[in-house]
Formats: sequence, C-alpha cells, structure tokens
Amino acid sequence: MTKELWGIIKKIRTRKPLIQAITNYVTINDCANILLGIGASPAMCEAKDEVEDFIELADSLYINIGTLTREQKEAICLAVKKASRLKKPVVIDPVGVGALYTRKTFILKLLEEYEISIIKGNSGEIKSLAGMDANVKGVDSMDDGPDAVDACKALAKKFNTVAAATGKTDIISDGNRTIRIKNGSPMLTMVTGVGCMVGAIAAAAAAVENDFLKAAASAVLSMGIAGDIAAEEIEENPAPGTYRVKLFDNIYSLTEDKFVKRSKIEWE
Amino acid sequence: MTKELWGIIKKIRTRKPLIQAITNYVTINDCANILLGIGASPAMCEAKDEVEDFIELADSLYINIGTLTREQKEAICLAVKKASRLKKPVVIDPVGVGALYTRKTFILKLLEEYEISIIKGNSGEIKSLAGMDANVKGVDSMDDGPDAVDACKALAKKFNTVAAATGKTDIISDGNRTIRIKNGSPMLTMVTGVGCMVGAIAAAAAAVENDFLKAAASAVLSMGIAGDIAAEEIEENPAPGTYRVKLFDNIYSLTEDKFVKRSKIEWE
Amino acid sequence: MTKELWGIIKKIRTRKPLIQAITNYVTINDCANILLGIGASPAMCEAKDEVEDFIELADSLYINIGTLTREQKEAICLAVKKASRLKKPVVIDPVGVGALYTRKTFILKLLEEYEISIIKGNSGEIKSLAGMDANVKGVDSMDDGPDAVDACKALAKKFNTVAAATGKTDIISDGNRTIRIKNGSPMLTMVTGVGCMVGAIAAAAAAVENDFLKAAASAVLSMGIAGDIAAEEIEENPAPGTYRVKLFDNIYSLTEDKFVKRSKIEWE
Repeated sequence: MTKELWGIIKKIRTRKPLIQAITNYVTINDCANILLGIGASPAMCEAKDEVEDFIELADSLYINIGTLTREQKEAICLAVKKASRLKKPVVIDPVGVGALYTRKTFILKLLEEYEISIIKGNSGEIKSLAGMDANVKGVDSMDDGPDAVDACKALAKKFNTVAAATGKTDIISDGNRTIRIKNGSPMLTMVTGVGCMVGAIAAAAAAVENDFLKAAASAVLSMGIAGDIAAEEIEENPAPGTYRVKLFDNIYSLTEDKFVKRSKIEWE
Repeated sequence: MTKELWGIIKKIRTRKPLIQAITNYVTINDCANILLGIGASPAMCEAKDEVEDFIELADSLYINIGTLTREQKEAICLAVKKASRLKKPVVIDPVGVGALYTRKTFILKLLEEYEISIIKGNSGEIKSLAGMDANVKGVDSMDDGPDAVDACKALAKKFNTVAAATGKTDIISDGNRTIRIKNGSPMLTMVTGVGCMVGAIAAAAAAVENDFLKAAASAVLSMGIAGDIAAEEIEENPAPGTYRVKLFDNIYSLTEDKFVKRSKIEWE
Repeated sequence: MTKELWGIIKKIRTRKPLIQAITNYVTINDCANILLGIGASPAMCEAKDEVEDFIELADSLYINIGTLTREQKEAICLAVKKASRLKKPVVIDPVGVGALYTRKTFILKLLEEYEISIIKGNSGEIKSLAGMDANVKGVDSMDDGPDAVDACKALAKKFNTVAAATGKTDIISDGNRTIRIKNGSPMLTMVTGVGCMVGAIAAAAAAVENDFLKAAASAVLSMGIAGDIAAEEIEENPAPGTYRVKLFDNIYSLTEDKFVKRSKIEWE
C-alpha cells in the first residue's frame, strides 16, 4: 500500500503537474520551492483579475488563507468556483479557522458550495470546522487526541471530501477509510510553513491521483519522512535554520526505498 | 543586569506568547521563523477585516511598515487602536521614515495618538522621527554617531515610549535610562530583515516583560550575540547565505552562558 | 570584454546603487538578499501612494509582475511613468506573459509608452512578447531553440530596448549586438526565483552602466557563474535547499578571477 503512495510521488515527478496556488505571503516562497522539490511546477497566480484565466491551464488549485487580504478573498472565490466547474482538484488549507470566526464561515461556505478534493489543517482547525471544541493558540493547535479522528471522519462525510488533520499523529479520512501516520519530528514545529507545504504537495498529488485519500496520504507521508531524515542529519546540533534547508533537500532526495522503509502508516 | 535580560528570553520560551504581526512582505517569513526560534508563537494576521478580532487573542502586536499597502495601512490603524485600548504592548518598526515623508507622518500620528511600548528603527529613522537631520539611503541608515543617543532620549521622552536605534552601537532609551549595546557583526548588514527580526523579538519580549526598556534590550542583545556567534562560525568563508541560516540556528541555541558572557552592554 | 562586464559588478560594489523594486511576493526576499549580495542597496518600495516619491531617490527601478495585485498594477504604471520622465533605468521581468494574455497586454503597453532599459524573461516570455509562438507551462518556458535569438533581436529593435531571454543558452540583444551565455547549472531550475534575481541584478547593473546590453550580460553571467560554482560545491549530494543557500554565498563571493575564467560567453 505504501508502494502505491510512493507511486503518486513518482507520477508527480514524471508529469510535473502545474499547481496554481493562492496562498499566504508568509510561506509563499516555501510553497513554491517545495513544489519544485517534489517535482511539480508551481504558479503562485493569485491576482483577482487573473485567477480565472489561469485555472484553465492549471492541473490543480491550492488555497491557503494564512494572510487573507481582501483581494485574495475575492480571488479565492472566483478561482474555486471555476476550478469546481472545470472539475480540477482543489485543496484547501484553512489556516486560522480555529481562531477567527470569519475565516471559519468563509471556509465552511466554500465546502458547502463547491467540490473540495482535500481539506488539510492542523487538528484544531479540522475540529473547529467539524463543529467540535478545539484547543487552539492563534494559528497553532494545542492538542490532537482521539477526537481528531472523529473530526476528520465527520468533516469528510458532511462535505464529501477528504479531511486531513496534522498533529503528533496525522489523521486522514474520506469518511469511510481512515489513515494514521506517525512520521514527523518535533523539529517540524520549529519552522514556519511546514503545514502549508504539506498542503501544497497534496495539491500536486491530487493533480495526478484521483483517489484523494491516497493523494493526501502521500503528501503527509513525504513531509513526515523528509522531516525524520532531516532531524537525524542534525541530531548533534539541532537548530531550525539548518533543519529548514535540509527539509527542502530531503523532499527532493526521497526515494522509494526511504519512503517505504520509513513510513509509519496505519490503515483502518 | 544582563542575567535579568536573559530572564526575559527564558520567559518567552516558557510562556510562548502569541505575537500578532502586521509586517512587510520582504521579511515576513524571517519574522515568523525568528519568533519560533526565540520561543514565541507567531501569527502574521494582517487582513483589515481580521486584525481587530485577532488582537483580542494576541499577547502583543508588532507593526512594520516596510511594504505599506493601502490595506495594511488601514489594518495597522485598526489594530494599534484596539491594542492600545486593550493595553496590549505594541512595538513599531518605522522602516523608511527617513526616506518617505508620508511614512514619517503616519508613524508620528500613531505615536501621538496611542501608547506605543517600543519604537525600534535604525539610527537614521529614529533621528528622523526625533526631528533631527538624518543621513539615510532608502531604508538604510548611513551613520549613527553620538546624536543617536540624543535622538533616542528625545523621542522616548516626547512620546512616553522606549526608543531603540540600531547601528554600530545600538542605543535604547526610555528618556531617563539609556543602554548601549556593542554586539553585532558587520555581516548582519549583508542579510535583509535583521532589523525587522529584532523588532519582532522585541514584541515577544514586551509580551512577557513590562519594563519595555529591558524588553527592547533583551531583543537587541539576542540578535547581536547570535550574529556574533554566526560570524565566528563562518569566519573562514564569510558569505551571507550560510550566515543567514546560522542566524536562525543561533537565536534558537542561545543559552544563559553565551548570553551573559558575550554581552557588550553599557548602562547609563 | 568579459573583464569589462566584471567592471560593472565592481562598480555596483563601490557605488552601492539604490534599487527600487516592485516585485512578486514569492521571491521578494530573495531579490532583496541577492541585491545585497551583489553589493547594491535594495528597497522594495511598492505601495501605490509611495512609489512616485521613492523613485526620486532610487538609482534604478526593477519591475516584476509575478503576483500582480491590483495595487501593484497601479503602482507599476505610476513608477515606470515617473522613472521614464526622470531618465532612470527601468528593468522589467515579464513573468507569465506567455500564459496570461492580460499580462502580455500590460507589458506591451509599458514597452510602447515608456523607455525600458532591459526586458528580461525566459525564452517563452520573450518569444510571446515578440509575437512568436511560445511553448510555455504556466510561468515556465518549455524550450529555447534558435528562434530565441530572433525573438530577442526583434523585441529589442521594435521597442528600442535590450531583450534578454534566459534558457539553456541565455540570449541578450539590443537589436544590433547579440550575446550568448552558456553558463548555468540545471540545478538553477530547481530553485524558485532565480530568474527574478537575475532581473534584480540587471537593475543594479543598469544603475551603474549606461550600455544596457553589457549591464544585462553582467547580471546573467553573474548568476550563471554563481550557479556553476554552487553546483560543483554540492556535486556529491545535489539538493535544492543547500544549493539555494550556496547561490547567495557565491554571488557575494564572486571575484574577477572566477568571473573571467569561468565565463562562457559569445559575442556576435
């Protein structure tokens, strides 16, 4: 099964899908570089007047609301609407929905009105969207726990989507099938943008794989394994500047062997 | 006394204060990463429609006007007003006030109308705000000199704030007490965003320490010392790409021992 | 001749020209850091209300339309108009004109109405502006080929400018003289922003050298040679995170010796 997930990464490398991203300005550079690293072709096309034209060219759309300017908000609505009409995969990263009610309303509306392939947040964000109590601190989640599974299942069922909640254990569910992934070093939380990058990779995976549960899993697993290897490489001198550089290195250097041997994945 | 400043960094690490930043797009990623590195929790929440809601959750507010879009300008006014009302610390980085009259007017108005905990600029910017002649080149300062001390004192007194002017010697004053810090390698000027990062750390410090003079000093000193260590680590092959990575590493790896032994600080 | 191009880099280091950039949010930090690395003084001043005031201080203007928000679009028009009136060099990076018709129209209008010193894109973008068929994928070019030379010549002649098309072989032409540069590792395509950084360096070069053909060539050559050295340094373990860091290191560490010995340049 893990070999099948690796097959998705291989397909990204071969097909080099064009991923359109409307994403936050904090980690926009990281998302572009990680998409290159995994083998995709990034295009951070987000201007209101351009997103509808560009989505015709793109293989999938990545939406991240970390810095939701007024123009971005309008652009996101236009882009998701058109992507939905053109049946192009859409991946949403609902940054901050646990902290800001207006963001939660915005994302729930997108989930209600359009076909969203994957919604990937931290466990606090996914719980919040599922209508459960969430312990969040700003844009960070303060817990995962067993109810993250319930949240993913409920959210996925309600909106006919795949929900992925990252945390100590990452949970991914399409409402019926559920996956748990236990890769990922604590160092990943010392670098901004890791969650955003997982979302971007998920959009690349969704561009080449119709089973969005597997697409999401391949993305989460890639970052988890790259994070594990990077952590080992700086074991003697753990520090976030060097770690961050090594994350990009290790996403690029993933091999089937590393991927299969290191994966800590459980299917339910 | 330096031990007391180190205590502020320790408090950041323990309490992990939530810092809201409205900052420029050039170094927004650096500011987020340096806040994580020092132990705080960054949230670059800057959309006009969101800043007032978010400041209720935040422990302090960092304002940096390096790329002052129209929406940011409006967001800053709303955020500072509400932070002031809620008595949350506000740190301002007045990027470019020496070059652009409109920016100077904008910042002086904020200083007049609201309680600003710390205003941290390069010496040219601080002189300019203090109404003195400043030798600036775009967003960079071309001199410090003894009148930087006068500028800090005057600005701090006039607006009942703490003024910090970075330069060869960093000056920090609350109008009565004045601190000089002589740490910091010339390599720091070869990397964009060092000043912005100092401001962000100052906002984290102000979130855990009410004596804003000390809060500002702990931030300036942290970056100066991390900069010194990073410069030593690349002594044989000085180059800004590697140096930048090591800055993040060394902010994260600061210890009481390094902090106390390496500090070049003078109290007046 | 290559020595003369190196002389331009030396002049940047000596004069430290102030470069105003209105550029995309993906690589805005990279552009600022590469300008520092080459010896210039960057100022990412892009707010609509500020660009006209700032251009009076700047030595040249760099325009990059990678994320063309509405405010940026208006700011670019104001800035280019005033720079043109003040006879300050303007360098344009027409990101995405091969994919988006609206961007192409926007750039062609700037070329028609104002004096543009250098227009630097990938070969697909330059072909597209020259009215030729271009094989592009989003913001990337899928081919160069011999017609890139024709495209550069035609575009340069038509708009009385210097056209530079990057690709496996980089082409630069002012309509009469044409230069081919064959430096540059394939690793350069694994890092986002390399093209943008070349454009930013070209703006720095144009600030100190009136022969814009030579200015453009010195910029393209600098990045190509830095890219070659960086690739050799990571030969045993090629990976884009480390490579990117080494690009900044090697731009900063360029010497006349490296520049002259390594240049693969042909004059026509």
